[in-house]
Amino acid sequence: MSQPHHDTGPAYLLGTHQPGAELTARLWVPEPWEPERVIVRQVVDGEPALIPATLVAKTRAGSWWEATIRLVNPVNHYRFLLLSPHSEHPYVWFHAAGLADHDVPDATDFQVLADDDAPDWVLDAVCYQIFPDRFAAHTPPRERIAPAWAQAHEWLEEPPVAGPPSGAAWYGGDLDGIADHLDYLQELGINTLYLTPIFPAGSLHRYDATTFDHVDELLGGDAALVRLSSALHERGMRLLLDLTTNHTGVGHDWFRSAVADEHSPEAGFYTFDRHPDQYVTWMGVKEMPKLNHCSDAMRDRLLRGPDSVTAHWLLPPFNADGWRTDVANMTGRSGMVDLAHQAATDMRATMRQVEATTGRPLWLVAEHGHDASGDLTGPGWQGTMNYHGFTRPLWSWLASPDPDDGLTWLGIPTGIPSLPAQSIAQGVREYAAHMPATSIAHSMNLLGSHDTPRIRTVVGSREAQLVAATALFTAPGVPTVFSGDELGATGRTGEHARTTMPWTTPPGTTPTDDIGPVGAWGAVDRVVLERYRHLSRLRHELPALRRGGMRWVYADDGLIVWMRTHPDGDVLVVLARAACAPLSLPLATLPAGTAGEVEAMDGVEITILGDAGGELTIHATAPGSAIVLLHPALPRSECAYAR
Amino acid sequence: MSQPHHDTGPAYLLGTHQPGAELTARLWVPEPWEPERVIVRQVVDGEPALIPATLVAKTRAGSWWEATIRLVNPVNHYRFLLLSPHSEHPYVWFHAAGLADHDVPDATDFQVLADDDAPDWVLDAVCYQIFPDRFAAHTPPRERIAPAWAQAHEWLEEPPVAGPPSGAAWYGGDLDGIADHLDYLQELGINTLYLTPIFPAGSLHRYDATTFDHVDELLGGDAALVRLSSALHERGMRLLLDLTTNHTGVGHDWFRSAVADEHSPEAGFYTFDRHPDQYVTWMGVKEMPKLNHCSDAMRDRLLRGPDSVTAHWLLPPFNADGWRTDVANMTGRSGMVDLAHQAATDMRATMRQVEATTGRPLWLVAEHGHDASGDLTGPGWQGTMNYHGFTRPLWSWLASPDPDDGLTWLGIPTGIPSLPAQSIAQGVREYAAHMPATSIAHSMNLLGSHDTPRIRTVVGSREAQLVAATALFTAPGVPTVFSGDELGATGRTGEHARTTMPWTTPPGTTPTDDIGPVGAWGAVDRVVLERYRHLSRLRHELPALRRGGMRWVYADDGLIVWMRTHPDGDVLVVLARAACAPLSLPLATLPAGTAGEVEAMDGVEITILGDAGGELTIHATAPGSAIVLLHPALPRSECAYAR
Repeated sequence: MSQPHHDTGPAYLLGTHQPGAELTARLWVPEPWEPERVIVRQVVDGEPALIPATLVAKTRAGSWWEATIRLVNPVNHYRFLLLSPHSEHPYVWFHAAGLADHDVPDATDFQVLADDDAPDWVLDAVCYQIFPDRFAAHTPPRERIAPAWAQAHEWLEEPPVAGPPSGAAWYGGDLDGIADHLDYLQELGINTLYLTPIFPAGSLHRYDATTFDHVDELLGGDAALVRLSSALHERGMRLLLDLTTNHTGVGHDWFRSAVADEHSPEAGFYTFDRHPDQYVTWMGVKEMPKLNHCSDAMRDRLLRGPDSVTAHWLLPPFNADGWRTDVANMTGRSGMVDLAHQAATDMRATMRQVEATTGRPLWLVAEHGHDASGDLTGPGWQGTMNYHGFTRPLWSWLASPDPDDGLTWLGIPTGIPSLPAQSIAQGVREYAAHMPATSIAHSMNLLGSHDTPRIRTVVGSREAQLVAATALFTAPGVPTVFSGDELGATGRTGEHARTTMPWTTPPGTTPTDDIGPVGAWGAVDRVVLERYRHLSRLRHELPALRRGGMRWVYADDGLIVWMRTHPDGDVLVVLARAACAPLSLPLATLPAGTAGEVEAMDGVEITILGDAGGELTIHATAPGSAIVLLHPALPRSECAYAR
Repeated sequence: MSQPHHDTGPAYLLGTHQPGAELTARLWVPEPWEPERVIVRQVVDGEPALIPATLVAKTRAGSWWEATIRLVNPVNHYRFLLLSPHSEHPYVWFHAAGLADHDVPDATDFQVLADDDAPDWVLDAVCYQIFPDRFAAHTPPRERIAPAWAQAHEWLEEPPVAGPPSGAAWYGGDLDGIADHLDYLQELGINTLYLTPIFPAGSLHRYDATTFDHVDELLGGDAALVRLSSALHERGMRLLLDLTTNHTGVGHDWFRSAVADEHSPEAGFYTFDRHPDQYVTWMGVKEMPKLNHCSDAMRDRLLRGPDSVTAHWLLPPFNADGWRTDVANMTGRSGMVDLAHQAATDMRATMRQVEATTGRPLWLVAEHGHDASGDLTGPGWQGTMNYHGFTRPLWSWLASPDPDDGLTWLGIPTGIPSLPAQSIAQGVREYAAHMPATSIAHSMNLLGSHDTPRIRTVVGSREAQLVAATALFTAPGVPTVFSGDELGATGRTGEHARTTMPWTTPPGTTPTDDIGPVGAWGAVDRVVLERYRHLSRLRHELPALRRGGMRWVYADDGLIVWMRTHPDGDVLVVLARAACAPLSLPLATLPAGTAGEVEAMDGVEITILGDAGGELTIHATAPGSAIVLLHPALPRSECAYAR
């Protein structure tokens, strides 16, 4: 049965979001619901207010209702009550997680921030993640002075799968190498780069920093960062850096001072159970002592004010456009102490100060490998790496790895489960319902990262990777491509996935963007590269994909259909993991008048018969996907005011 | 299909709750689940830890699994993953809200506090709510000097239904009148009194206080409170008072100072949009100016430290045992300011100071008419008036009011919906899953209060009220009887429900506990009174009812079966709102060996055939209820260690 629809995007919640604003919330109720009355329940100052909704238009396929929502509180919660006393469903709540025939918790109400300062530019971002040692070398590695622990590797050598060799494996990529290939990135539609850490460290992943005061000389040092940042900004591109707020390396300046003198200020930056050799760490790893967020002095150095590490790299001459915060989920959390929200708020406050100085809006993204909703409604993290709401569900729908690859389920010691579409849809919808849509819109969606196996290895085929790519570029959230995924690179673990880009021009020669036929993982897949370029273009062209609301239209076993809703035209997205029986959707219930551009890819065919009274038929004969632009049945504004 | 079971009560989570403790979490998995592996996922310092569970015993009906949970963080979250690779359900999460075939939010994990300082005595409490003007008069009202606005009413006169007359209706009850009837209350099994406000005010409900410094002389003044408190404590009974932390009356000392002088300290206690006549109020009511929790001086006077109002009435000579906080859901919340948790934390901190001085553990309960889960995991409110998790769902299952009474749905402008048991069970389970069980255990369960219609009017019959009463005395949470409910009193609104107790002895004569045949609402129902006394005794006798975990066993349309789990014996509770087809429950899947005492009431019959391999059959031929004591199939400790 077709469900009612509302979302907090621009097609269903009309008006400017600011404290005190009155917005029009619009609800579509398809037949056979036909409620006699609709009431909006908004929690105002902690108390539910009940607002009658008005029936503003009726079509043969359903009805439109509207009510006024006021942005009174920092986070504004509301949901709809559909009263149909003479029907089978006399009392139905419609909330962000769906329909319920009983009272539901406020946790899954629709949620809107009154004062959302997350940057607008992020909504238009297509992001590319670079592991700096592995993207491109501008300076030949032989000209660098590497630390004694570094193990030099040939550029096209397969990375170690796990263990200490992976942290020591040095390929020699550098920041000028990245600057050499900005044309390539722009052709891929990338406008935002995210670099994993660039500070000196005790490994090549650099999550064990030895200082936050300068850029690793192996990467070209501070000057190379200034060059890269300037080159990006000249092209209108942006740069996100990576800060470990949870811990440092054991060789960090701060930790060395702490160990040398238990009365030093830095001794308080960590938690020593017994000085100097017993201390709290990240997950028991002695090389990564955990920072103590109870220390005001530490918070000042790391997070607070214009002299903090946080501010330093966002200010001239470095001008980074934001931070990805490592292990944000654990930052400030240790036993009976929970200062996580404080740390996020401090960091955000500093970034607001920098914004006031520089006029550049900044992005703050938290690493969070699981449910982050509890950390996403305050004035701190603006989004996360959306593993929980995107990567995990998509994997468990599409995964078909080679059993010999021994993939496990992102931290859970079992194989990746294979779940039907309806489970995926329910899980994603429930999760997204626990936070304002802006928190998803300002999150990175990933098919994989330097911490996971590669998507190609997870799904096991080009066909399935292409389906995953359509999902990546059409879901709410910032499509984030882990460097090399666009070439069909493989990798069985996070470490093994840190493959290099197979440029044909060696370091020290004039760089070109030509890519060789073979990478560290084997053959480069140019079909995938072209598809990424194409999908990226579609995202840039269709406002609904970047800024639209989210509606789940259909999910059953091998077929998922969602819609991005936007006043400039809704966009229907079809994903098929296998051949499926044909599915017909009446355009009138979507509700849509005419279908515009149709982009049917691989095994999916789309047939459209008639206009507003007609039907759209989806037929998957093999894995594939489609993107269909739909024009509203009535001009939405006319509909809204046809009282 | 029978579901797995775990709860955080003493039968399924073994060990002492304190920071650092290791507890044994026990999971019952009935056939046909048969997982190959069970993994516990606990969030530790913000990161999921995965703990393999051990199969400790197997019976013909299912299996027992155990894992260790560590109380590391203030709130500890965990859930179970059941892996059955060769079954129809290969990947299943079991969390506090039930089963899911997809990843679920952490919000509905099982939750345990490491450092739960909520008073133990509350678990054994049976509470009685008194509206002081209406319980009993010791001093004849003609001997009192009433304020000019008070409208004297005859003791047995029907209260006004709504509007200003209800606030002015003065019947003349007083605190010594309460002390006169403690035998009656003890015979009803009551050990805790909750009084609505006793401070002088501009009305008889007294939620518009004119001072917090002394007890209303109409009630006997400070000395009467000391007498009542002492009399209660001599009997081992306890006393809960009512504080309005959200607002005062317009005639309050503080507000009068604020109005008189905009530079007075008190002017900052409120929020004046324009001094002196435009100010923020409770829900637009000019007589109730809202307190400004941004004011440190106000917080000091009201909430913080030994000189605060909060402390004053808990200290000698008054010695109250805690506070019910009025409009706690709105306290400190106003537009873009949200200091609600700060207010709760401040109040709790002061109460801890008093506890340290007096050695008496104190209860802090929040009024919250809707979803309170977001306010119940910090170190503030220990519980709420559980309208959302008890009153509302029970009403919507049992309601059958006379249409002429015009009852509405507790704030929602429609009639009370009639919902089937499965909707009720799902709603209650989802809601309870959003907080630690201790927050429900330390909440008041109510069938109604001075703010709602009477249960008798809501359900429309004695039979249905008796079913409601069984629910009240067997659910997790403190059974709280609104004075008069035990006599079958009726009332169509909160105001109309504020009926007097029909004692046969007039004020000024030697009081007895004799109750007349007729109250303000009509005939007194002595069958109901006897049933309340009986159920109250059962609660005091059976530890599972007071301290057990909660398990939903069955819910379909007119029949609800739940179980309170406890090492001393589980207790099965049956509620039937109408005749139902017989239901057979295999004892082995509960799992139970033998059934003990059976208390079948009204239209319900219980038949038990055989022991552990046998069945328990429930047959309702009319509305009714039952309580059945079940002895475990194996001694639990033997089961646990049969490795």
